[in-house]
Amino acid sequence: MSIEKMISEHPDVAGHLNEPLAKAVRHAMYCAAICNSCADACAAEENVAERRDCIRQCLDCADICTATYRIATRRTGSNEKILRATLQLCAEACEDCAEMCSHHGDAHCKRCAEMCRECAEDCRKAGQNL
Amino acid sequence: MSIEKMISEHPDVAGHLNEPLAKAVRHAMYCAAICNSCADACAAEENVAERRDCIRQCLDCADICTATYRIATRRTGSNEKILRATLQLCAEACEDCAEMCSHHGDAHCKRCAEMCRECAEDCRKAGQNL
Amino acid sequence: MSIEKMISEHPDVAGHLNEPLAKAVRHAMYCAAICNSCADACAAEENVAERRDCIRQCLDCADICTATYRIATRRTGSNEKILRATLQLCAEACEDCAEMCSHHGDAHCKRCAEMCRECAEDCRKAGQNL
Amino acid sequence: MSIEKMISEHPDVAGHLNEPLAKAVRHAMYCAAICNSCADACAAEENVAERRDCIRQCLDCADICTATYRIATRRTGSNEKILRATLQLCAEACEDCAEMCSHHGDAHCKRCAEMCRECAEDCRKAGQNL
Repeated sequence: MSIEKMISEHPDVAGHLNEPLAKAVRHAMYCAAICNSCADACAAEENVAERRDCIRQCLDCADICTATYRIATRRTGSNEKILRATLQLCAEACEDCAEMCSHHGDAHCKRCAEMCRECAEDCRKAGQNL
Repeated sequence: MSIEKMISEHPDVAGHLNEPLAKAVRHAMYCAAICNSCADACAAEENVAERRDCIRQCLDCADICTATYRIATRRTGSNEKILRATLQLCAEACEDCAEMCSHHGDAHCKRCAEMCRECAEDCRKAGQNL
Repeated sequence: MSIEKMISEHPDVAGHLNEPLAKAVRHAMYCAAICNSCADACAAEENVAERRDCIRQCLDCADICTATYRIATRRTGSNEKILRATLQLCAEACEDCAEMCSHHGDAHCKRCAEMCRECAEDCRKAGQNL
Repeated sequence: MSIEKMISEHPDVAGHLNEPLAKAVRHAMYCAAICNSCADACAAEENVAERRDCIRQCLDCADICTATYRIATRRTGSNEKILRATLQLCAEACEDCAEMCSHHGDAHCKRCAEMCRECAEDCRKAGQNL
């Protein structure tokens, strides 16, 4: 299933898709899911007491990514100032979460850090292309 | 980025992935995004006054799919009774949303109906494989 | 600010408020917030390693309460079958979360258990009054 | 049920509540619910075709308020830079949504505008008191 195709079928988009924005939507959606999963996986780690900050940051990042992808999807009317600020916040939250996760050796934090960096980059590009 | 790989890196999963459940997670995540997009696209349709029910049902379905994919992702501890009931509710909400969207000729409702049917099927399968 | 007054100002409600439903909306909204807070407080407890199940169950319950209050708020069109099933699921999730939290002696789990029980009761009543 | 009391029971808060932040949590929670309700009520208005922008802006604002209250609730670890930026974004989104809703004469948009203004003010105060 393609988010990009879905957005391009919006009556006001009519095929003229903002591709950087659509890419940011898809990656923020994935990043929300990956951060939600990473927080849960950190809670199951043996050294959970050292993962408290990571759990918190992943949950915060998931909340911001969820808001971001939902807002950036909407093409009815216009809310450009808020959309730009949301993409900016999402990029910052993802960069900080990537930094936190990159300090842990396990596979899920490594994957989460990678996803967050990619999402941050896409949000910055999307913000420049509004 | 792969949701399935992420879940299989959870310390208590350790590679023994419940594949039908992981597939339901991925499709409920996508279905949440598609339904959010369809509600927005319906609001932009010329005949928006005839789309009120569709907007409402897509928003409801997006909310249920979001809760479902987040809950079904978690592998720390166990909440099996609630997970099974959530997958069941998600299947029903998706079937009803698919039925509603299938009455509209536009591309986004058609895509949304298709996504909803797929998600419903995956949620039913996942519920049988818990 | 009153959620009940807000819903009664919906053009199709026009003052004829379903009071048990409006009460369920308000309490599910609160319960989502309390469960989100309890999960976070459990992550900060010294014995966090024994709180994993509680964190997970509170996060699941918060997700279901969020979906429930959002869906139960909507009065445009009708989605009664799904609304009834959602209220039922929310009652079950809240009862299970209350049971989990009632095993912990700290103030936040006690408060969360109390909130969950109240929300469960209101969701059951609302489901009987649709 | 009191969100403020709940947060003050967090083990790291231990009664030393940041009151402006707790107030912002409570009002962002309410504002998320009111904006969700206003979007739904606008979809039911006779002149729905003129409400498209308002539906969109209310949905965006609900998404941001939801992320904000959830993040601002968490007191485990620290994510202060992101919290401050989130409160700032929430204040802007609420001010813009209040401006949009203030152009409509119906009771629900009036109530939503009032709630949004109050939430914006509380988020600004909370950001200055971190």
